[in-house]
Amino acid sequence: MRIVAADTGGALLDEAYNPLGLVATAAVLVEKPYKTASVSLVRYADPFSYDMSGRQAIRDETYLAVELAREVMPDVVHLDSTIGGIEVRKLDEATIDALSITDRGKEVWKDLAKDLQPLARRFWEETGIEIVAVGKSSVPVRIAEIYSGIYTAKWAVEYAKEHGRARVGLPRYMKVEIMPGRIHGESLDPREGGLYGEVDAQADGIGWELYPNPFVRRFMVLEVWRA
Amino acid sequence: MRIVAADTGGALLDEAYNPLGLVATAAVLVEKPYKTASVSLVRYADPFSYDMSGRQAIRDETYLAVELAREVMPDVVHLDSTIGGIEVRKLDEATIDALSITDRGKEVWKDLAKDLQPLARRFWEETGIEIVAVGKSSVPVRIAEIYSGIYTAKWAVEYAKEHGRARVGLPRYMKVEIMPGRIHGESLDPREGGLYGEVDAQADGIGWELYPNPFVRRFMVLEVWRA
Amino acid sequence: MRIVAADTGGALLDEAYNPLGLVATAAVLVEKPYKTASVSLVRYADPFSYDMSGRQAIRDETYLAVELAREVMPDVVHLDSTIGGIEVRKLDEATIDALSITDRGKEVWKDLAKDLQPLARRFWEETGIEIVAVGKSSVPVRIAEIYSGIYTAKWAVEYAKEHGRARVGLPRYMKVEIMPGRIHGESLDPREGGLYGEVDAQADGIGWELYPNPFVRRFMVLEVWRA
Repeated sequence: MRIVAADTGGALLDEAYNPLGLVATAAVLVEKPYKTASVSLVRYADPFSYDMSGRQAIRDETYLAVELAREVMPDVVHLDSTIGGIEVRKLDEATIDALSITDRGKEVWKDLAKDLQPLARRFWEETGIEIVAVGKSSVPVRIAEIYSGIYTAKWAVEYAKEHGRARVGLPRYMKVEIMPGRIHGESLDPREGGLYGEVDAQADGIGWELYPNPFVRRFMVLEVWRA
Repeated sequence: MRIVAADTGGALLDEAYNPLGLVATAAVLVEKPYKTASVSLVRYADPFSYDMSGRQAIRDETYLAVELAREVMPDVVHLDSTIGGIEVRKLDEATIDALSITDRGKEVWKDLAKDLQPLARRFWEETGIEIVAVGKSSVPVRIAEIYSGIYTAKWAVEYAKEHGRARVGLPRYMKVEIMPGRIHGESLDPREGGLYGEVDAQADGIGWELYPNPFVRRFMVLEVWRA
Repeated sequence: MRIVAADTGGALLDEAYNPLGLVATAAVLVEKPYKTASVSLVRYADPFSYDMSGRQAIRDETYLAVELAREVMPDVVHLDSTIGGIEVRKLDEATIDALSITDRGKEVWKDLAKDLQPLARRFWEETGIEIVAVGKSSVPVRIAEIYSGIYTAKWAVEYAKEHGRARVGLPRYMKVEIMPGRIHGESLDPREGGLYGEVDAQADGIGWELYPNPFVRRFMVLEVWRA
């Protein structure tokens, strides 16, 4: 199967390791054997003015996933969401009310569905491809999360080239390695069976260090600086 | 201590990675240092006509565990179950009603107890050995789960010899390796401290591939084919 | 940042792997890159007469953390607790009543707060350093837990020198290695990013074995004996 997925991750951190805003939304095409992406796209947010309610992330993910899906025509599109296994084109008010999520979550989804439901319906009518809100059990969503971390590292390198240094938090239990001409990232959870990714990047003259975020167990911090 | 445990796992998958039925029940004898089995038994189910309610699994596990326990006379028998730490010979209606499980679960256990409670009581009267429904905290139950995955791989090899190919899903976060004369399997969770198993198998002329199930994070798929 | 944390762990086990009592409280100073301790202190309990209610542990941890903090003057002190992110000096009756914990937990904390709240307030008045009950998300608390396991191994070595042998349970998913002149310990969870510790110890003439606790998945048992 050929699956497109999208996720948002990576955060700019202040000196006390507080997240200021998210950095990167990644969309990926994942094909058998489902360990990495054969194609990836990124859209960078402005972490200095980020809507942390979660609404911006899911909107960015849907648009970017559709952009990639129009190009590569997968069998299905996976979005990261807690509403588990529902086709986005079917998200009307009654369906959202019947979800087992909080009232606050229902309000957020009713608002989101105004844009995303017609988008998903039109995309399905044109292509026959479903956009499904699947959440944490999807491996392609996890691969998209790993790519959002790799692109966050790339963003940090570019930011450090211009401003001297940057400190970012990566998505859950993953690491990155800055190599000549590219950035490699991989899951730190061996139970996931070896998920990884790689992106081109020029990091000449850049120093870096990776270490655990002292306040959030199982999340790593990346610092990069002009050496 | 010498502990016998049993568990059922491994599923035949269709082309869309949906489980059709479970494949193997394994019973194991586990002795210090509790990392693998010193003896193992298998009973294969017919995955093409499998009762997925969970009732078939626990029944098969109890009978197979008792069969192995009669042979090796352990200190105790562990079954995988959500009813946590109860001796099966004590499972009467009042005890089941007092369990903190769902009403549906109580009905299932009342039905199961009709066969299993007398079996456990007779076995205890004859041997003094308790059969305990312990669940996920038992390491021998996890080793039985790993063996059910190894035997599922062996079943897939035999099936592919006859029908050309097979695709099976392994139990949670474990991998297998098909080697000359044997199949090796091990946990992918290093927190478990190195649990593994091995079973004799002839796989000459068989090709294989192991990769993450794209729809169920932390579960691996094994494909085997006549090369 | 420089963080002091404390935790209690490691248990003396009987022949059936039942815990008899906890062994070691460790306090650690953790500095960037937050993977190990630059300073550690230990206080041993008497595992043969231990108050398993949890009250003894948190009291020992607070006193030992303050002792280390007076010496090294960190930015903040982390205690392991389920009451999530509250400054201990602010723990009055009204604040405890407002916590989302059980009524039993509230009684325990009201009792504990009698000693610990004035201690934390005085320490804060003298030094400006906050003592925060943070719990499982703190990496320094996890490093303190790993050190409590290493010190438990050291205690077991000393006990075996005197009494012939000892069997202890280590804190969750960690291992130890007894080496010439020192004991090394590390997390078995790679998602934590490589947390470890080391303590001086003389173990000449001591044999040892590490293996999974058969009744508690993801916890290891250490046996040591006079060789």
